[in-house]
Amino acid sequence: MRVSVTYHVRSDATEIAARAQGIAVEQSVEMPLAAIDEPSVLTDIVGQVEDIADLGNGTFAVRIGLALATIGEDAGQLANMLFGNTSLQEDVTLADIDLPDTLIAQFTRPRYHVARLRRTLTSPHRALTASALKPQGLPPDRLGKLAERLAMGGLDVIKDDHGLAEQRYSPFADRIRHVTAGLARAVRHTGHQTQYVPSLTGNLDQLREQATLARDTGLTCIMIAPMIAGLPALQALATEFSDLTIFAHPALGGLRIAPDLLIGKLFPMLGADAVIFPSYGGRFGYSQAACHRLAENARSFGAIPVPAGGMTLARTDEILDFYGPDTILLIGGNLLLAREEIPREAEAFTRAVAAHEYR
Amino acid sequence: MRVSVTYHVRSDATEIAARAQGIAVEQSVEMPLAAIDEPSVLTDIVGQVEDIADLGNGTFAVRIGLALATIGEDAGQLANMLFGNTSLQEDVTLADIDLPDTLIAQFTRPRYHVARLRRTLTSPHRALTASALKPQGLPPDRLGKLAERLAMGGLDVIKDDHGLAEQRYSPFADRIRHVTAGLARAVRHTGHQTQYVPSLTGNLDQLREQATLARDTGLTCIMIAPMIAGLPALQALATEFSDLTIFAHPALGGLRIAPDLLIGKLFPMLGADAVIFPSYGGRFGYSQAACHRLAENARSFGAIPVPAGGMTLARTDEILDFYGPDTILLIGGNLLLAREEIPREAEAFTRAVAAHEYR
Repeated sequence: MRVSVTYHVRSDATEIAARAQGIAVEQSVEMPLAAIDEPSVLTDIVGQVEDIADLGNGTFAVRIGLALATIGEDAGQLANMLFGNTSLQEDVTLADIDLPDTLIAQFTRPRYHVARLRRTLTSPHRALTASALKPQGLPPDRLGKLAERLAMGGLDVIKDDHGLAEQRYSPFADRIRHVTAGLARAVRHTGHQTQYVPSLTGNLDQLREQATLARDTGLTCIMIAPMIAGLPALQALATEFSDLTIFAHPALGGLRIAPDLLIGKLFPMLGADAVIFPSYGGRFGYSQAACHRLAENARSFGAIPVPAGGMTLARTDEILDFYGPDTILLIGGNLLLAREEIPREAEAFTRAVAAHEYR
Repeated sequence: MRVSVTYHVRSDATEIAARAQGIAVEQSVEMPLAAIDEPSVLTDIVGQVEDIADLGNGTFAVRIGLALATIGEDAGQLANMLFGNTSLQEDVTLADIDLPDTLIAQFTRPRYHVARLRRTLTSPHRALTASALKPQGLPPDRLGKLAERLAMGGLDVIKDDHGLAEQRYSPFADRIRHVTAGLARAVRHTGHQTQYVPSLTGNLDQLREQATLARDTGLTCIMIAPMIAGLPALQALATEFSDLTIFAHPALGGLRIAPDLLIGKLFPMLGADAVIFPSYGGRFGYSQAACHRLAENARSFGAIPVPAGGMTLARTDEILDFYGPDTILLIGGNLLLAREEIPREAEAFTRAVAAHEYR
């Protein structure tokens, strides 16, 4: 059994066949084939070049079949076999993977989280609204008050800024207590169950401790950055906390891996229910085409896309038309610019999403 | 207290000041400054542009002071604050960090490992020799025999190929048992204590279990790939297994972070005692200058550089002259090409390193 992996390689046409074979070897046995004296390794383990296509502009799409047996059951080893050493070669990008059902089944967890999130919010169809608690440096009680004010506008989801961690100025336990209290005050006014998504950080012990505290506090959502925590940590959390909805943050995701693959396929396959990513037209350089593929890929895994990274209220209609209703639209810093008027601005955001008619 | 971080940014000269300020905000509060109403956040937390230097060719070196308070004590959060979101911007590379002593002291563990490795090998001065067990797909007993044959040539260090994990065809526990037995057979002939460095994989629980098994088997060295396991996992292992010598493998390290920084500074600071990297002149594209800086950086942290990635016996003199004796020279696949003559080839390698006179 093999998995087909596509790399984009910058190369001369005369050298691409050798480069492709080099990647097939690098991502499997990583040694000269002439030094291998075990026939089954040559037939079953060594990567096989399946296709080479000229994409123009000196770039080729190289499809390589890698043996599933080399991957085992660990998410880290999956990343290792897909791109471990080749990530160090600047002329190669990991473009796509044709994930076989056996691999997906092996890693994927039950997929009821997005539907449950909608039920909790009594919002079966429309796009969901989200904002973020910032800036880091604020003490927990201030973050709690900010959460309350954002929630007064009826937002569905309020997440921690991914910069919030276990800093001295806002320890996780204090933060979660104050933010939860702030949201409880807001819900008494709005009647709307705004969901809090705290950012979990540290090693697996610390992630578990924080996830447990979140669950014990009555929360149903958590966020981690898989490329910082490590893919094995995402896999472990997704398995052990199967009742919690997991948001994945893209921080440190700037490998030469196509974002529609890394964020759109791998994060959801390994357990993410909602994937945050920098949308086209914001502070980051992802193209419309990449964002569209990313969102579609995520949905195909039962996850919900969360476009972010410089979104504004003025762009709500455009963004909703582009991504459709199965989306969480995240406006962070731009909502906070309203300062004293944050509740009103959040409410305007809520109304704009509720009133949107898709083209 | 701030840490000075240098980014290389491709930009028009007219836009570089705004880009620099943008990175300073992205890597600290990640929101419009106009939305921040807490004065202490503006003065103490927001990143500060300290310097912008034109490097020519449309690239600028931007030095930004980031608040130490945002980093806390977690290696993952360190990576997050240094490059989390900005890693997603293709025109920015994380080039260097002027690590303050307080930060180094906070993360660094005791540094006796390289000296102990030399004592164990009764090799106080010369460069050390290493090879790798490949290909994956071989059963554990075959790997054990290969280890024996390599060790018969008197090599100092034999590491697992980083592709060896918890695969069905060679589970970790079986592998470690067979390889250890193979090396024990060899030492009865050579009298030389070849050290085995098994590759640890999986999540923190699994890494701990494997490290414990290695220790219980009498091994003193382990290897992990920090960018796959996650930096918090490296930090945890380095703290909990302070008696084990840790080799770091660069797999999945192809972020836009300068290798002399990521592999030369950050891996050692977070606990690596020996850092494996693809040397210039092999299958990867690192420059001589980058390799030199990487090796010097690693040594300044008390770690030993391990150039690898396509090294050959014929290049031994050149490589030793370039890196000097405080080095572990790793020849993997090229030694294995000798097939039936592996012990003799390993011995030739051993002799070449022992006999080398530095220019």
